Parts: sequence; structure tokens; C-alpha cells
Amino acid sequence: MREVSRVPGPGTTSLRRPRVLVTGGSGFVGRCCLPLLTPDFEVHALSRRGRGATDGVTWHAADLCEASVTERVVAQIAPSHLLHLAWAVPPGSWPAAPEHLDWTAASLRLFQAFARAGGRRLVVGGSCAEYDWTAGVCHESGTPATPRTLYGAAKRAVGLVAERWAETSGLSLAWARIFFVYGPHEPDGRLVPTIARALLRAERAACTTGAQRRDYLYVRDVAEALTLLVRSDLEGVVNVGSGRDVAVRDLALAVAQRLGRPDLLGLGDRPGSDDDAPLVVADVRRLTGGLGWRPRYTLESGLDETIAWWRRQVLEPKRMAHS
Amino acid sequence: MREVSRVPGPGTTSLRRPRVLVTGGSGFVGRCCLPLLTPDFEVHALSRRGRGATDGVTWHAADLCEASVTERVVAQIAPSHLLHLAWAVPPGSWPAAPEHLDWTAASLRLFQAFARAGGRRLVVGGSCAEYDWTAGVCHESGTPATPRTLYGAAKRAVGLVAERWAETSGLSLAWARIFFVYGPHEPDGRLVPTIARALLRAERAACTTGAQRRDYLYVRDVAEALTLLVRSDLEGVVNVGSGRDVAVRDLALAVAQRLGRPDLLGLGDRPGSDDDAPLVVADVRRLTGGLGWRPRYTLESGLDETIAWWRRQVLEPKRMAHS
Repeated sequence: MREVSRVPGPGTTSLRRPRVLVTGGSGFVGRCCLPLLTPDFEVHALSRRGRGATDGVTWHAADLCEASVTERVVAQIAPSHLLHLAWAVPPGSWPAAPEHLDWTAASLRLFQAFARAGGRRLVVGGSCAEYDWTAGVCHESGTPATPRTLYGAAKRAVGLVAERWAETSGLSLAWARIFFVYGPHEPDGRLVPTIARALLRAERAACTTGAQRRDYLYVRDVAEALTLLVRSDLEGVVNVGSGRDVAVRDLALAVAQRLGRPDLLGLGDRPGSDDDAPLVVADVRRLTGGLGWRPRYTLESGLDETIAWWRRQVLEPKRMAHS
Repeated sequence: MREVSRVPGPGTTSLRRPRVLVTGGSGFVGRCCLPLLTPDFEVHALSRRGRGATDGVTWHAADLCEASVTERVVAQIAPSHLLHLAWAVPPGSWPAAPEHLDWTAASLRLFQAFARAGGRRLVVGGSCAEYDWTAGVCHESGTPATPRTLYGAAKRAVGLVAERWAETSGLSLAWARIFFVYGPHEPDGRLVPTIARALLRAERAACTTGAQRRDYLYVRDVAEALTLLVRSDLEGVVNVGSGRDVAVRDLALAVAQRLGRPDLLGLGDRPGSDDDAPLVVADVRRLTGGLGWRPRYTLESGLDETIAWWRRQVLEPKRMAHS
């Protein structure tokens, strides 16, 4: 375990707060991290779209895929801590998008710029897609990281290089493998938004049979884990999940019931895909034991908040644009 | 196995020969590949230093770490085949060089530019450093690719992404994991050049005990394997090695004996390193079975040629500058 001594940690009396840069700060997960960091960090957030809604955050509009922009912005901010969550691919092109290659390169450039600017503690959003899903229960060191998808391969590639590079360059790195996340602002095309949007429009939602079991965690619990990681000096790969698996069918039903339209749920309307491994669940002993993290939400309370948000979002879209 | 139909292969009667771009064309391995390709390819070679010595090759001076340069040069050449061997790190900084991150990014950019320019067949120089060396005998799919070094991690990262990306983009990709290479023009700092240079100056060459066993292959045999891969449609990871292991001590002694100074060989003068796994040798059944490759050189005949070259190089450096 490497010591992070240059930058005072939380609880340290200091004239200057540590400075964290959050990439993807206006994204699904990033936006939830910001308010958890503002109490004891000087928070800078980076987004292509410019500023988000969180108070007490300095926003920087920048596209990390432009090399010179990254170098300039990071040098100017000179953060001691970096939480890298940005990874943007055009909707619909996800599995085969060449942008996964761009983000692989952009992430490695960002880490170099961070180190050159004097940064010390780096936390990166990886993915459960890095694992071989035939394993079922995924353990940080025991389960082979042999991804089946281009996205998983790109995340794994960045993690492989980052981990070895941190060793040689003196950075403290935690690589968070995030499992299945749901909550407000979840991007379209994924399970919960697809069902919620369809049912709120009184349309049928086509699903697979949903027999596959997955590890779902509410976005605010994910953010809590990530921001705890930013504050800690725990290094290496850390799974971020609930440690519990739920049948996708049961999650879909829970969403439909909260919207009062279980009749519109078309379980079995869509064929399953090759990616539908029967079980994908995180071994979370590093997260709970090494970091003391505990989820604040159950699947029930997380879904209550999520569906309440979707109701507002779809029924009152204008008023809720910045919620 | 994907068909490579747009570009006529060798032996096909055609008005236009297939066009191959070789990166690192003036490098240790690349320079040996060029003359093997000129009979049936229109050969373009790329090098930061500009032109090399091979006849019948069109040279392009370009630094692949500059994104816009890559895009422009590759679009201009529009190669059907790409043999990517470039990977340059400043001497002395090898294990921890941030340039490994730059080359990871540069390689992914190059592959995208190649695909955009209509390229179809891609062969990349990977490394045995991608393997977990505790395995001893390294097999393409059976041995975990969990590299210990930043260099190995960077190569593995590129390979991971390239393999998944080839699947989704329709490229035909072979990833050559090259084992230990020796021969003329081998870069300084490696085993054979270090011993040859020292002994030719009548200086003592400090070595480890050399008990570790490695898979050494003469550079022209490596080039033969790589250029066979360029012509074939064999996909996925392919080990490029001799399939035979030799104790580093015995290789060092063979070099010293050819230079007539075994007395100057300081075996045990240097401590071993953690990287000194007892055995690293390639399983070459894919290379021999899938490609029909056979080495033309024994360790003895390869070393004869190598040491003859080093003698000329050190004793008559000016005359030999372009040999």
C-alpha cells in the first residue's frame, strides 16, 4: 500500500483542501459523486456539455478525446485526486463502436497528464464487462479478466496498463469494476429506462425471458463506494456491486408493478443474446472489508426513488430538465 | 476464418499487387521483413527516421505518436495489409517508460486509420511479455495473459482491444507474440549486443548466472513467420518462437566462444531480477501447423551470422553503417 502524503486527506486539518477532478461529471454516475465530494474536496468536474447542476463545483467543458485539450485542462487544474468516469459512445453503436478505441487512448493520455500535473490518487470506473461471465461470481483476482465485448476489452486494456504504470510512476490507483447500476438519469436503451419509458407511455415493453441473474446497485450507493475509494488508499481492482443477484425478470416486474402496469411487460418478447450468462454477481469482500462500505439502499428503496424520478421525468419533462 | 477477398493474395494473377504498410520498417525485425514482402507486395514502410536500405520499398517518414500524421499517411497509402511492428521507447527507460502508454494509444489509432482507409488484413507484433511467465511453456489460449511488466501490459492491452475490434469491424487480425529475438541490428542493452560489444572491446561482460531458459529465434526466421502471417488468413494469437529453450548461460557462452573470449564472460557478476522466471518457451504448434512455418536457422547458424555482423559493425563501423 503506497502512502498518499502530499495531499491532506479528509479529517486532516489543513489550510488547503485536496483537489479532485471528476471526469464524466455530468454523467449518470458522475453527477451523484459530486455532492459526496464537495464537503472535503475542492471539486472540479469535466464534461463535454459544460456545467451540471451541483453547487460548489467548478466546471470545465472539455472533450478528453482531444489530446491537447486534456493536457491543458489537467495542467491548469492540477488535481491531487482524479476520479475518471467519462466514457462516451454514440447511442445505438455501443457493441462495435470505434469510440471504445478512442476512449482507451484518451484515458491513458489523461492519466499521464494527471501524473505530470502532480496528481497522486487515481480512481477509475472499470466494468464487470471485464470479467469472463461464465464464472458467475466475479472475484477481483480469482476470476479471469477475459472480456467478451469490445467495451469490456477496452476497459480491461486501460486497467491493465494503468495498474502497471501506477506501480512504476508512484501513483496510487484503485480500479473500480462497476456492476449493474440503476437510478435517476440512467441512459436510454438500458433495462430500467426502456421499461419505464414504455410503460409510462402505456406501451408494451419487449424483454427477454429475464431468467439471467445480475448484480444491480442503486447509483447513489455506487457513488458512495467510488467517493470512499477516492478518499482511501486502497489499491488495485475493487468490485463495486451489491454482492446480491436478482433475476432480471424480477427486477423488470418490480419496475412494472411500481408503474401499475405489469400487464405491459412482454417477458419473452425478445430473444436472449449470447451475452446472457446465467449469473453475473460481484464478490464485494474488498469493498466491504477493505473500505467499510455498506449499501444505504435496498433494491426496493432504490427502485422506489428511481421510478418516482422516471414518473416526473416522463410526465413533466420541462420542469425536471435539471433535476 | 474471415475471407480476405478484396485484395488478391500471392499467386493470384492480378494487374495490381496487394499493398502492405510496414511500421517500424527500419527497426530490428521490420528491416528483415521488407525483402520478404517485395516479391509479391507493393511495399510501403514507415519510420520516424525516414528511409531504410531495402530496394523496392516506398518510404514514409512519420511519427505514429502524432495522431494527425497517422491518419494522413495511412489514408494516402491506403494499404490492404498492415504489419505493425513500431514501438519505440527511449533507451534506458524501458521498464517504466510512459511511452508505452503513448504507443498503446498510437497503435489503436493506427488500426482505426487502416480500417477507414479500406485495409483488411492486420498483423501485429505482440510479445511473450504478455504471458504470465510462471507458466513456463506459453500457449496462445491456455496460458494466462497476465503480464508483469508495463511493456507486456501495454502490448496485451492493444491486443485485447484489437482482437475484439477486428471481430466487430470485419478486419482479419493475427497477433504475433514474438519471443526472444537475436540477430544483426539488435538494439543495444539486450543480451547479445551487450556481450558482443564488450568482448569486441576486450572488456568483461557482466551477466547474471544465466540459469534461466528462454526461447531464442534468429531475426530472419521471425521475419519469415511474420510475413507468412501477412499472406495468410490465420486469425488470433500466434506465438513466434523456436519452440526450444536454451539456458541464457549457454547462449552467452556460444557468443563468447565465437568471439574467442569466453574468459571475459562474467557469469554471475550481476544479480538476477524478479523477471528471471526459470523457463519461458513458446508452444509453436499454431505457427508450424497453422502456417507451415519452419525455422531456416539453427541457434548455431543464426549465431554465426550474428557474430560475423557484430564483428564488422564494431570493427568497421563506418563502412557498415547501412549494412
